[in-house]
Amino acid sequence: MGQPGDFSARPVPGLPEVTTGFDLGAAIADLGNLREGDIVAISQKVVSKAEGQTVDLAGVLPGEAAQRLASELDKDPRMVELILSESTEVVRTDPGRGIIVTATHHGFICANSGIDSSNVDGDETVLLLPEDPDASARRIRAGIAAATGVKPAVIISDSFGRAWRYGQAEVAIGCAGIEPTDDWRGQQDTTGRELKATEIAIADQIASAADLARDKTSGTPVVVVSGLGRFVIDDDGPGCVAQLRKKGEDLFR
Amino acid sequence: MGQPGDFSARPVPGLPEVTTGFDLGAAIADLGNLREGDIVAISQKVVSKAEGQTVDLAGVLPGEAAQRLASELDKDPRMVELILSESTEVVRTDPGRGIIVTATHHGFICANSGIDSSNVDGDETVLLLPEDPDASARRIRAGIAAATGVKPAVIISDSFGRAWRYGQAEVAIGCAGIEPTDDWRGQQDTTGRELKATEIAIADQIASAADLARDKTSGTPVVVVSGLGRFVIDDDGPGCVAQLRKKGEDLFR
Repeated sequence: MGQPGDFSARPVPGLPEVTTGFDLGAAIADLGNLREGDIVAISQKVVSKAEGQTVDLAGVLPGEAAQRLASELDKDPRMVELILSESTEVVRTDPGRGIIVTATHHGFICANSGIDSSNVDGDETVLLLPEDPDASARRIRAGIAAATGVKPAVIISDSFGRAWRYGQAEVAIGCAGIEPTDDWRGQQDTTGRELKATEIAIADQIASAADLARDKTSGTPVVVVSGLGRFVIDDDGPGCVAQLRKKGEDLFR
Repeated sequence: MGQPGDFSARPVPGLPEVTTGFDLGAAIADLGNLREGDIVAISQKVVSKAEGQTVDLAGVLPGEAAQRLASELDKDPRMVELILSESTEVVRTDPGRGIIVTATHHGFICANSGIDSSNVDGDETVLLLPEDPDASARRIRAGIAAATGVKPAVIISDSFGRAWRYGQAEVAIGCAGIEPTDDWRGQQDTTGRELKATEIAIADQIASAADLARDKTSGTPVVVVSGLGRFVIDDDGPGCVAQLRKKGEDLFR
């Protein structure tokens, strides 16, 4: 677990324009100056772009379910088709505000199956989440290690809305080299009393911290967090999928 | 808004034992070295202690509703009485796991009305949330300013469980000198496209970041975040209450 203490987050500018097939691990290695114990937080958007997860809406043919839901929600039926095809379940809809919350095929609960229609080239182009963000994180980590000999943890993050609170927070959707949660259950506090139900969402908190160093408009997708090496592990760990609450244990879907 | 960039978080040790009536503003000022633009993140627990929010369960007489719910959930009826008296609504219960999620009188949706039974002196003593955490933050901020001439933002935070994901994340329950969310809606991205629905949970993300610098067992409740001065405002702002989703707009309660 190691000792807590100071940490810092710094945006790393200079990532070239990312297109399909782009080698993010090598490019991040080139940005330089990574040290053992660092954590590299990367915006989902560039990972999706590198993996060719862009979809041209012009080629999407909405099915009947999508057409019905789209008219109910006053949304583009092609977008709704994509949202449905990326999901296993519609968790909530709000016709008044055109909101669809789904469970994605990965298991994330979020608006629009995480499909991003902002900041992508071309008005009809949208961006799906990576197919398997944990695998993406492992691949990027391996790429960095191969190029530099340094094995930082890698977190891929996206901003999700939350229940009960306004504002989106950045959460980890993929990770490698770090446990998504830090489980203190069964340990004792300073008075010797057992800490109950204290499992800390480390990867999500790091994703949120990294986001504070980032500018939403300037496109600085890579942030390096230093000083949290106690959370970095040598093996890749279970990935973010391990922190998705099982449906039977979830009171809010 | 200012420019984004590096920031750092450092735990500040040395806070004396906090008891009822303790002047947190003056004590934090004494810890030294605060600069304009800093953000002071404080664990709820010491704020509650300073405000005398400890309750001895021995003095709590459970009413009929509490007794019924307690037997259903296999919990201490006196604790359930407190949970109910601190809440306006029971949002969910899970008898199998003894979980009660409520809406507190402040409007927070969280387990056990935020009542803390760990790490408080005496086995029968529990700790309620501050009566008005935004007012607490304003008071602490004013205390720091009076003692030092520096007016940092102040965030009071607590760890809440989340829907859909395992692990607790630290969120802001009170704030002063910072807007709880940063609203980018209506602004444009780098391609000139309007950013849709991008309201960022700044105070919560800072609470999460600060938590990463903290050790759950050592009792370092004060963390200073430097480098995010672009979010610090001169007036106290609307407080965290402004980021609580209105019930009619909430799909998950």
